[in-house]
Amino acid sequence: MFEAAELGRKVTREEFDAIAPQLRTELLEVQRRLREADFPVIIVFGGVDGAGKNETANLLNEWMDPRWTVTRAYSRPSDEESDRPPFWRFWRDLPSKGKIGMFLSSWYHAPLLDRVHGQISVAEMDERLIRINHFEKALADDGALVIKFWMHLSKKAQKKRLKKLEDDPLTAWQVTPVDWEHWKMYDKFVGAAERLIMQTSKGHALWHIVEGADARYRYSVVLNTLKDAITAHLDRRDAMKRVAAELKKPKTAKKPAPEILTKQPSILSSLDMTQNLDGDDYNRQLQEQRARLSTLHRRAKDKGVSTVLVFEGWDAAGKGGTIRRLTNALNARDYQVIPIAAPTEEERAQHYLWRFWRHLSRAGRVTIFDRSWYGRVLVERVEGFCTDDAWQRAYGEINDFEEQIVEAGHVLCKFWLHITPEEQLARFNQRSEIEYKQWKLTDEDWRNREKWGAYETAVNHMVEQTSTQIAPWTLVEANSKTWARVKVLRTVCDALEAGLKKSK
Amino acid sequence: MFEAAELGRKVTREEFDAIAPQLRTELLEVQRRLREADFPVIIVFGGVDGAGKNETANLLNEWMDPRWTVTRAYSRPSDEESDRPPFWRFWRDLPSKGKIGMFLSSWYHAPLLDRVHGQISVAEMDERLIRINHFEKALADDGALVIKFWMHLSKKAQKKRLKKLEDDPLTAWQVTPVDWEHWKMYDKFVGAAERLIMQTSKGHALWHIVEGADARYRYSVVLNTLKDAITAHLDRRDAMKRVAAELKKPKTAKKPAPEILTKQPSILSSLDMTQNLDGDDYNRQLQEQRARLSTLHRRAKDKGVSTVLVFEGWDAAGKGGTIRRLTNALNARDYQVIPIAAPTEEERAQHYLWRFWRHLSRAGRVTIFDRSWYGRVLVERVEGFCTDDAWQRAYGEINDFEEQIVEAGHVLCKFWLHITPEEQLARFNQRSEIEYKQWKLTDEDWRNREKWGAYETAVNHMVEQTSTQIAPWTLVEANSKTWARVKVLRTVCDALEAGLKKSK
Repeated sequence: MFEAAELGRKVTREEFDAIAPQLRTELLEVQRRLREADFPVIIVFGGVDGAGKNETANLLNEWMDPRWTVTRAYSRPSDEESDRPPFWRFWRDLPSKGKIGMFLSSWYHAPLLDRVHGQISVAEMDERLIRINHFEKALADDGALVIKFWMHLSKKAQKKRLKKLEDDPLTAWQVTPVDWEHWKMYDKFVGAAERLIMQTSKGHALWHIVEGADARYRYSVVLNTLKDAITAHLDRRDAMKRVAAELKKPKTAKKPAPEILTKQPSILSSLDMTQNLDGDDYNRQLQEQRARLSTLHRRAKDKGVSTVLVFEGWDAAGKGGTIRRLTNALNARDYQVIPIAAPTEEERAQHYLWRFWRHLSRAGRVTIFDRSWYGRVLVERVEGFCTDDAWQRAYGEINDFEEQIVEAGHVLCKFWLHITPEEQLARFNQRSEIEYKQWKLTDEDWRNREKWGAYETAVNHMVEQTSTQIAPWTLVEANSKTWARVKVLRTVCDALEAGLKKSK
Repeated sequence: MFEAAELGRKVTREEFDAIAPQLRTELLEVQRRLREADFPVIIVFGGVDGAGKNETANLLNEWMDPRWTVTRAYSRPSDEESDRPPFWRFWRDLPSKGKIGMFLSSWYHAPLLDRVHGQISVAEMDERLIRINHFEKALADDGALVIKFWMHLSKKAQKKRLKKLEDDPLTAWQVTPVDWEHWKMYDKFVGAAERLIMQTSKGHALWHIVEGADARYRYSVVLNTLKDAITAHLDRRDAMKRVAAELKKPKTAKKPAPEILTKQPSILSSLDMTQNLDGDDYNRQLQEQRARLSTLHRRAKDKGVSTVLVFEGWDAAGKGGTIRRLTNALNARDYQVIPIAAPTEEERAQHYLWRFWRHLSRAGRVTIFDRSWYGRVLVERVEGFCTDDAWQRAYGEINDFEEQIVEAGHVLCKFWLHITPEEQLARFNQRSEIEYKQWKLTDEDWRNREKWGAYETAVNHMVEQTSTQIAPWTLVEANSKTWARVKVLRTVCDALEAGLKKSK
């Protein structure tokens, strides 16, 4: 794999100076075109120590307009970072649309070094590479250009390079004892790197192997590859946009499903909506569960076990009231309610999951999503805000996201609050009559109501595809608010209890 | 996950009869459109025993034009099949473009049951599911519509259904003791199935979960889903074709790479082309290695160890002569030379890897590819016969293919026979002068020669991306035919020796 990167390729200073001005102009021109595009560029630099990852990123920063680039490098996770799933910090730093992000010691760093130091087996490295593949695939599917450079040096060249850096007082600081330790493990490192590249070089995220021994050769190849890749991607995205537009008006008008299918019971219509709790029972059980939650939460906080709660449901199903009954049992500094409405401008410039990743909170806290990432497979699907491809692949992306939350030891509960259309109508009418509740009722609520059937189908599919053993949905019969509140509280308590047991 | 498929959904005979004629007409119409399309439809039926997988496939066969469908079901691999990598039989049976393939007890069967019976761990099942994901992704990337139905029954419904089948003398044969055994393992089965679906329900290959208790409901839902999915895919492919056409004439004319990059040494130009073997040395070493090969091959045949040899190289590099020196040492019934030219009509109607899968031979045999699947990243790339996306993702597809060959215990060697442009010119001129060699020289050879630089770049990338520890490339300095032949023979012998050791 690396034979082709040990050939002694070189570019002289004169040669480089001769092409530099034009290359630089072309790069700036590409960057200018990119600024108006609807995708980010994600550049990953990996490779052997001393092969010029940093210098190359530096040159890029120097040559390009820095307002449109971000550079990130990762070492050991900070306190802030280790409280969250490992990919949190990478999601946080993703460049927005139109920008270029450069990643040094990226998501590949830990799996590779853990393998080189024998801390994980080949199979365990493979598992972590699969997570990386899912990550890069999700970004590429969303339009991102993912381009990866592997800077290579032969064992001999690495030694020479480290010595040279050490001998120059200006660069000596760059060489640490760790670098020499790594040099001794060269063969192991290169063996693991080969597997890493083989497992993660995909059509949508190809590794380019670059001979790193000569700086000017390295610069020329990286800059030229980058310029060509961005240009080709700009053209490709333009063409894709035209396809998406065409697919919005399909040649074949979509026929509605036959009535014998639409009239079938759904997972929602089969719920027993007569469930109820009388005043006394309700008060007693509510107090019980809240006391239980309060105790459990204090234990969870001590142990650093976080909780993520997801609330979805029909308009007027009582999400807000239920959430308030729950948060009343918690300390205000320990929880956050995240109301999810239309994305902000900043959020729209990112992958749709980005805004949920950013809200995952520190260890021991409770994060409550009032509506959530499920918007992708509910409102965005029903309203046609995203393509069919996009919501269909979202099931897998969501399962992957939730798996990372659960693997990080967080407790995750997902609630669908269900009411019947009749109950919804009654509540809407009530809202429009009571003055201090009128703000809650919008025209959109009435419009959504007309699409009840389409939403019901979407909810069915959502439960099918994302109610898993590690992250099950709880469907809540919410025609009775009392019943719903107690059921939610009890479910959260049960999940916390189980989560605390596991964390022991 | 399966809650939504235990709702007791039903369609009466009258209701079904009322929609059947129209649905059937629509399906035939969709099939007619599909016949002219450039993709196959791959339907996978999975699910609980007795949930109606067979009946549904039967109905589809009855309703559609059988000339354009194939149905396959798999049980234990035959002798023929177990001699090859496990996916060989699935590749063999893939429907060609325009056809519908229905797969029962498909590639999901063995991983699921092995897990249910505790023969593999969850991690091992996951690994096998990843291979499935790669398989389905490769087919979908090539344009195939992959659609998967999971037929579900509750535990109670399954019991009822098996009883009913048993009680009817016409269907009693369908219920075997194995079915009842499976029923007892219902919970395990459903648990493993949930993980299977979660890991393999992708945007490009979604699992549709179908409540299987009522036959007419099940038929209605499968037929309707299928009709809609094929229709949407036809539209999508049409749009994609227009994009591909547009991308052939990109907005931005691609600039050639700067000369400072193209003039650099390549992995090929760095070979020591003065290597040579004199007549006596050559004869002695050739005899030695052929004797060695002959012995090793007989041992390999006894042990059932197959060998796959790949020959690539410049026109007139001496592939044919080298292969003959090799096969002379083998028994004619034990090897096959597969010359790869332009694909046949049958081959063009399939995924590009299909024609290589089909040639993998039985245990203990030697299969020699004179040119190979690497055409995708060489001639098809250079000549623009496939899109950039297609050859870029081919590296991963090829690594996956070769990994399966090696995992099945086969010995794999890949040779690039290199000659210099000057040597090629001399050989071309010689060919054109010697009458009995003139047939070997075509206009295409001269045309290819003009693209030497582009091919050299492609070879460099090919070695970078596909020379791995499990399947390394051997670059052969072939200006001297004698040197080349002995180097190839020795490499094959060394690899066979190592392979035999491993198989002990």
